[in-house]
Amino acid sequence: MRILVLGGDGYLGWPTALHLSRRGHDVGVVDNFVRRQYDHEMGVDSLVPILQLSQRVRLWNEVSGLDLDTYVGDLTDADFVDTVVSRFEPDAIVHFAEQRSAPYSMIDRKHAVYTQVNNVVGTMNLLYAIAEHDPSIHLVKLGTMGEYGTPNIDIEEGFIEITHKGRTDLLPYPKQPGSFYHLSKVHDSHNIQFACRIWGLRATDLNQGVVYGQQTDETTMHPGLATRFDYDGVFGTVLNRFCVQAVVDHPLSVYGKGGQTRGMLDIRDTLACVELALLHPAEEGEFRVFNQFTESFSVLQLAEMVADAYPGKVRIEHVEDPRVEKEDHYYRAAHTKLLDLGLVPHLLGPSTLRDILAVADAHRDRVDPLAIAPTVQWRTTASTLPTASGRPVG
Amino acid sequence: MRILVLGGDGYLGWPTALHLSRRGHDVGVVDNFVRRQYDHEMGVDSLVPILQLSQRVRLWNEVSGLDLDTYVGDLTDADFVDTVVSRFEPDAIVHFAEQRSAPYSMIDRKHAVYTQVNNVVGTMNLLYAIAEHDPSIHLVKLGTMGEYGTPNIDIEEGFIEITHKGRTDLLPYPKQPGSFYHLSKVHDSHNIQFACRIWGLRATDLNQGVVYGQQTDETTMHPGLATRFDYDGVFGTVLNRFCVQAVVDHPLSVYGKGGQTRGMLDIRDTLACVELALLHPAEEGEFRVFNQFTESFSVLQLAEMVADAYPGKVRIEHVEDPRVEKEDHYYRAAHTKLLDLGLVPHLLGPSTLRDILAVADAHRDRVDPLAIAPTVQWRTTASTLPTASGRPVG
Repeated sequence: MRILVLGGDGYLGWPTALHLSRRGHDVGVVDNFVRRQYDHEMGVDSLVPILQLSQRVRLWNEVSGLDLDTYVGDLTDADFVDTVVSRFEPDAIVHFAEQRSAPYSMIDRKHAVYTQVNNVVGTMNLLYAIAEHDPSIHLVKLGTMGEYGTPNIDIEEGFIEITHKGRTDLLPYPKQPGSFYHLSKVHDSHNIQFACRIWGLRATDLNQGVVYGQQTDETTMHPGLATRFDYDGVFGTVLNRFCVQAVVDHPLSVYGKGGQTRGMLDIRDTLACVELALLHPAEEGEFRVFNQFTESFSVLQLAEMVADAYPGKVRIEHVEDPRVEKEDHYYRAAHTKLLDLGLVPHLLGPSTLRDILAVADAHRDRVDPLAIAPTVQWRTTASTLPTASGRPVG
Repeated sequence: MRILVLGGDGYLGWPTALHLSRRGHDVGVVDNFVRRQYDHEMGVDSLVPILQLSQRVRLWNEVSGLDLDTYVGDLTDADFVDTVVSRFEPDAIVHFAEQRSAPYSMIDRKHAVYTQVNNVVGTMNLLYAIAEHDPSIHLVKLGTMGEYGTPNIDIEEGFIEITHKGRTDLLPYPKQPGSFYHLSKVHDSHNIQFACRIWGLRATDLNQGVVYGQQTDETTMHPGLATRFDYDGVFGTVLNRFCVQAVVDHPLSVYGKGGQTRGMLDIRDTLACVELALLHPAEEGEFRVFNQFTESFSVLQLAEMVADAYPGKVRIEHVEDPRVEKEDHYYRAAHTKLLDLGLVPHLLGPSTLRDILAVADAHRDRVDPLAIAPTVQWRTTASTLPTASGRPVG
């Protein structure tokens, strides 16, 4: 299969590209490196050092004998998108290429507008390019479980059958996203569903949970193939951040009560899920949604698991929740569609936690303790960050 | 009350501004005149001649003795939005200032992206300006009944109580919009609801049906106070277009079977609804939705009503539906909230139809028959228009 991986230089895009390449697919990587610019803007860096994309691609060829095509450019540039799609002629496109941090989108007005325009316009350009070049291209788009928010009923996979006043219909699941970033993904979902309906495109929206871990079967083939690992208050996700906090003897900072419950998955399962979606494409005109996570945990549970797994002493600290979210809520979300396609999950246990803690420990000298605390407040319209310029870099 | 009317030079914005002014409110009008530029781009014009905003405002002062403040600028310019909100210090803002044509948004990629960015960013800038300047400002935002699409269950006003697997929650009504324009309104709704939740803003989303008519109590006080009247294939809405077709002996062009059913309302009821929303503001932190229409009709019913009301001979013609929509469907939508606030609707009957036909007849020499046919096809990604430049003017 010929597969384009958009955002293929990122945390998940890079290991996905390697995984698909090793599995025998012809892979093209598209990126504009804006994720690396966010690091400069925020004054933070990946805990694990990462090579430039060109170096990584060369190294992958040396290690595996396999080639990756690369295309450098921005999805908000429609001409670039057209060129890439018509030159590479993909069978499928995996789309990771969006600004993916909720706190980044909540810094201030400019970052909110940047996030929504960047994500929504990039995806619209892609939809038009697919429709114009080859509507049979299967779009596998990364969404987020955060699109659903925390309703007081079970979350289903994209759609819910509603019986109301004696009539029944299967309708898009109501969305209650919790940041301008999460909102951008909801906008994308609506736009993609519409494009499938009017142009007969085929799309899979992967509503992904919070990913943890950093090592995959391919990235561990050589240290230079490592993917990034973020622990900072803006781009670091919860479990990875807790592991870093544990190894540098920083209290594990639980936002509020810690009853916030989220779907989670191992980075290796992200790769498996994307491949399963690719191997079982959506039908012509079909917009389908898979909830891509394997287990649910509350934030406090995660902190306790890390504390248990770490051999040293670990303190758990409750800090004021910078977000506007329920700190205690019902959470039960369906996630059977990927299991039905054959996903065999890596569940979160002591051995996985020890692996992540080992990654953190190996690079503990690179940890900037000042980068860990949350700096972006949901309740104000503008958060002052130590290093931010006040203007998004993208 | 101090009220800003955004898009106050438009079809509904202008008569709303006059109505609120005459009812004793201090009114400021904001516009960037892009609606008039669309006319140039499309090579069409309002059937009823309209004056420049500055002339209209001067005339209103002569006729009524009342002043309207004017602010000329673009909502996508955040500095402009901040300046207007801080200078005028409104109690409420009525927001009509969006690209509001579904066909315009479906011309091609550039017009789709323009529509979404223009509408979404303008509204985001407004939300930030309100939150930063004065969160108690009541935002009255024009949405559309088209946000809901045509589900097979009853449409409620913004929210629906769902009982699912033994649990119950009141959730945002699922949205199935039918164009990139309608999608932009769905995106707005999600963004506004979020801003109410995190910043305690108060907002009313008026999901308006298709408006018909052109004359209001204030615009008829002087011919120079007339508002625009569109009959062309891109900006003309269905009933107004049928009336023009009748008077110029053009067949009434029904798209497809004509079973498409939509909520409709008289232009005078738009003004009344907006005022009712203003006089009964949303609570702090409340995002509420009113379905703003008074009756539902199928397109074919409307054509038949116009044919009955017009004294001359009228032919009804079924043309291929340029849109992707159900031509026959269930449609039952709640619209009690504005009635509960005291709305007394002007229902659609022969006398209203005769009034609209009279407006059309008075300006029949200005009708361009070539502008009437639908030119924008939903099923293709780019429609070739006779006069369009291929680049949105906004």
